[in-house]
Amino acid sequence: MAHYTPPLRDMQFVLHELLRVTDTFKTLPPHAEVDIETVNAVLEEGGKFAREVIAPLNQSGDAEGCTLDRDTHEVKAPGGFQAAYAQYVEGGWPSLGCDLAYGGQGLPVTLNQCLYEMLNSANQAWTMYPGLTHGAYECLHAHGTPEQQQTYLPKLTSGEWTGTMCLTEAHCGTDLGLLRTKAEPSLDPSADGSFLITGNKIFISAGEHDLAANIIHLVLARLPEAPLGSKGISLFVVPKFLVAADGSLGARNPIFCGALEHKMGIHGNATCQMNLDGARGWLVGPPHKGLNAMFVMMNAARLGVGMQSLGLTEVAYQNAAAYAKDRLQMRSLTGPKAPDKPADPIIVHPDVRKMLLTARAYAEGGRALAVFTALLIDQELSSTDKTVKQDAADLVALLTPIVKAFLTDNAWIATSHCMQVFGGHGYVREWGMEQFVRDARINMTYEGTNTIQSLDLLGRKVLGDNGKKLKKFGALVQQLIDDEGVNEAMSEFINPLADLGDKVTKLSTELGMKAFGNPDEVGAAAVDYLRVVGHLVFAYFWARMARVALNHADNGDPFYRAKLATARFYFAKLLPETAGLIRTARAGAKPLMDMDASLF
Amino acid sequence: MAHYTPPLRDMQFVLHELLRVTDTFKTLPPHAEVDIETVNAVLEEGGKFAREVIAPLNQSGDAEGCTLDRDTHEVKAPGGFQAAYAQYVEGGWPSLGCDLAYGGQGLPVTLNQCLYEMLNSANQAWTMYPGLTHGAYECLHAHGTPEQQQTYLPKLTSGEWTGTMCLTEAHCGTDLGLLRTKAEPSLDPSADGSFLITGNKIFISAGEHDLAANIIHLVLARLPEAPLGSKGISLFVVPKFLVAADGSLGARNPIFCGALEHKMGIHGNATCQMNLDGARGWLVGPPHKGLNAMFVMMNAARLGVGMQSLGLTEVAYQNAAAYAKDRLQMRSLTGPKAPDKPADPIIVHPDVRKMLLTARAYAEGGRALAVFTALLIDQELSSTDKTVKQDAADLVALLTPIVKAFLTDNAWIATSHCMQVFGGHGYVREWGMEQFVRDARINMTYEGTNTIQSLDLLGRKVLGDNGKKLKKFGALVQQLIDDEGVNEAMSEFINPLADLGDKVTKLSTELGMKAFGNPDEVGAAAVDYLRVVGHLVFAYFWARMARVALNHADNGDPFYRAKLATARFYFAKLLPETAGLIRTARAGAKPLMDMDASLF
Repeated sequence: MAHYTPPLRDMQFVLHELLRVTDTFKTLPPHAEVDIETVNAVLEEGGKFAREVIAPLNQSGDAEGCTLDRDTHEVKAPGGFQAAYAQYVEGGWPSLGCDLAYGGQGLPVTLNQCLYEMLNSANQAWTMYPGLTHGAYECLHAHGTPEQQQTYLPKLTSGEWTGTMCLTEAHCGTDLGLLRTKAEPSLDPSADGSFLITGNKIFISAGEHDLAANIIHLVLARLPEAPLGSKGISLFVVPKFLVAADGSLGARNPIFCGALEHKMGIHGNATCQMNLDGARGWLVGPPHKGLNAMFVMMNAARLGVGMQSLGLTEVAYQNAAAYAKDRLQMRSLTGPKAPDKPADPIIVHPDVRKMLLTARAYAEGGRALAVFTALLIDQELSSTDKTVKQDAADLVALLTPIVKAFLTDNAWIATSHCMQVFGGHGYVREWGMEQFVRDARINMTYEGTNTIQSLDLLGRKVLGDNGKKLKKFGALVQQLIDDEGVNEAMSEFINPLADLGDKVTKLSTELGMKAFGNPDEVGAAAVDYLRVVGHLVFAYFWARMARVALNHADNGDPFYRAKLATARFYFAKLLPETAGLIRTARAGAKPLMDMDASLF
Repeated sequence: MAHYTPPLRDMQFVLHELLRVTDTFKTLPPHAEVDIETVNAVLEEGGKFAREVIAPLNQSGDAEGCTLDRDTHEVKAPGGFQAAYAQYVEGGWPSLGCDLAYGGQGLPVTLNQCLYEMLNSANQAWTMYPGLTHGAYECLHAHGTPEQQQTYLPKLTSGEWTGTMCLTEAHCGTDLGLLRTKAEPSLDPSADGSFLITGNKIFISAGEHDLAANIIHLVLARLPEAPLGSKGISLFVVPKFLVAADGSLGARNPIFCGALEHKMGIHGNATCQMNLDGARGWLVGPPHKGLNAMFVMMNAARLGVGMQSLGLTEVAYQNAAAYAKDRLQMRSLTGPKAPDKPADPIIVHPDVRKMLLTARAYAEGGRALAVFTALLIDQELSSTDKTVKQDAADLVALLTPIVKAFLTDNAWIATSHCMQVFGGHGYVREWGMEQFVRDARINMTYEGTNTIQSLDLLGRKVLGDNGKKLKKFGALVQQLIDDEGVNEAMSEFINPLADLGDKVTKLSTELGMKAFGNPDEVGAAAVDYLRVVGHLVFAYFWARMARVALNHADNGDPFYRAKLATARFYFAKLLPETAGLIRTARAGAKPLMDMDASLF
């Protein structure tokens, strides 16, 4: 059975030594009092919950899955999920990052992200229940009427109720402009401003379950005579049970789970087909602007998906590293390392180390990026300095598709490597390694496929503003180069970083020129481009982490020795992937578009 | 539900236009009469069986899995597998490539490989039952006593009995030298030269099932006082039911299935823990030389695993291409391509094409390599010319780890891409795409992990003979360059091929030098090195395929236009991966070995 230990030491390194988050918190009025001790205490307690309460339910939840009672339309989550969720609510964890006005604790997003990394390491399927709730909370917090906020936000904050996003229909996922679910004004004389919503949604995560008393669905639908396409879509809040003025639960709203999807992974989360048959819903935000409102949720969800994959990378690494130190098989090619044993532990073999270090470098690099991005969100939300706020918003916009796509692609690579370390045992369920791979796979697809992320990055975030946002990240890179350029010990990191920075600038310019002539050039290069920029971002953080580690080079603390060795591994063995990617990005659209569709 | 159409046109292209296999058959006495019509007729019938009989059982077999009766120790394969197998035996398919002396049809290995590609596309889990039988057949054919051959080979040839390889134990997979199963001379006065074998094996594919009347296990075990390690292992044939002199089945031999493994994929194949409790077995080959004998099976099995992944790549491609032409989502960035429809088919999008073409180029390149290798095996087995025989044997030795590891890594990439083309639908079981990914995953691990393959290639096959075998492949590449170097139309293929050939030569020399100083340099570079050489091999075949296609450039046949477009895609978008791989291969062992094991 797989095990999990919250990586508190490495989180503290990123938070306090690399990014000094409390220095930034001091500049943000709502968080000025959040000190290192508070941060560490929250993470320690959160990690304890993850390790002790939900990690033990991960494999059993996968094996058991969810079940639908076709008569009552009720869904049962795997055994133990309900009690764990009750304990989560009891502990106040849902409210961590929520607004004080609705009973939240008002702590920084940065802390919430670290909590979610740990929850996802322990049990991604379980974590999706509270995770989607937080998305619904954010959407209503940003776009709901005061009345809606008063009705729903306190219960979403406490976690007594959970939330969903109901977007996809069978014929449309990426292209929501095609959706058909209809919303019609209620003809009931007791009308309360509600609409009657009818249609069928698919792939609704946590769409129905037995963890909470009510489920608040945020549903995309079309008003009568709405314009065609994505400009005719509105957003509605549709509770499972109607809520009376006094907050008590009323009639069951006809939004029912019609079927559960049987999936490759995340079996513990109920992926529902939801049928709305005149379900009562209330407009959130202006008519026909539903996609805008939904994108608040979507951007948070994309970062959340990155955290899912970061969590899986970390836990897969931990298990593979432990196995590699324990499993005896063959001798080191340079002579026995454990001569008293029948064979050496497999960690003596260079390629086993390569697989492990790949996962480790992706986990630790991903953690730095994820915490950095969360801290920017805190600045975007709470800074009193307009320039800081705008810069933070621009960097968040730039980094969101990278967190989503780069971290999820990396987790696919890393979890597969970690499974491979187990040999045939990795393919067998009991060790839990193949589950990490199956769970990780969905992260590349949902909340906007990784292709969509790459189009968002190259088309909208980079070329869409003539590289303005990219230059803001480039300025950070340049600052580091300027600061460290004279430091001989840092040259092994700074030189390749600077070189890649130049190449990204050139590549961006070249792709921008080509895109003028042929928009397909963006689509042809975008996926490779995102991976190149992802490596630039990782190289930046690995250089910075190496810098911190070098400061401690003489004190013999093994943590810093490991950090430095991992940084060197990253630059030697992972970063060079960019050499091929830049070539394929530059190879353009012609080799893709030349073949007639009929010839495929 | 997934569908499958045997790629007969492309197989015929590879067999008859690219490799002209019947010209080679004419030089091989046993196959001199095998003409184009025979080849095509066999493939057509074999394809029909694959498509009509076993493809419809693929998803149902995955969902149902195998079941063990703990009282009788009998295993039930999924419903339909038994009848399909009976039909396979009835059709004479098991005997295709078997020796005439034992009732076989004596057809070339080349044809058998093409049959297996199709069977694996249709249903890998089912195909493993006959596939492992063929391995047992080959082992006994090469190493059995005449009596053993007479006892077992006719029934293995007909398929009435199936076979297994019992190697792995819980504590040893890669490192068989550690195995503990014991073989003791029988004390029975009626002794028939048998040994009593006791021990526990795991991961035994098709170890127990209800498809055949008897199962012939080939079991590795230690004789009393055998030397420690891999030089003390002997091979035994251990039938499930003892066989009387008249060929009738006698007593049940105590080799029982104790448990079935629950796996990520290939659910339809019974992966058994086998307990031997004084099971009667007969020595195959000399005492203590069991690994040598087993390697006959192993090499065939490795090529067989390559065919599994080739089959999965092909079928995943077919389904994804069909979906991409059908699924409407978004508009082409260059303007609507299906203006009469609500959206364009997703095949208009460059990255969808990139994912499809990746799978297609890997399938078609893999097919060329696989058939080429099979044809070499036919030459190795049947040529009357000693030089041809030796050259063929050397090339087979060189190419076997590439077929195994490169094709299986490619299938992992390709099946995942093809699943991604389906968006969220790919993650759901009903479409069958995620099963291809799960099934493909084991191919990277069993029959020697891909790391072991890469060590075999670099350490043994390349450096072990100072590049002699590699130079034989290099001579083929050079011949093509010499032949086509003056052909302007071929320069887009010949130039990068020549360039990569030079780089492989340099890299091999450099790694050989480094290995003298530090054997870990081999382990550190081997996986990247294998992928680079894999691309060299693919570039060679894609250049040759482009050459054939160019000959037909003017006749407008869409088959050749597609072939040429895929060749161009391969050189533009897949081959450049080598730029990064060569760098990481050269980055050496230090970044892997520097970190103390305790720091992982």
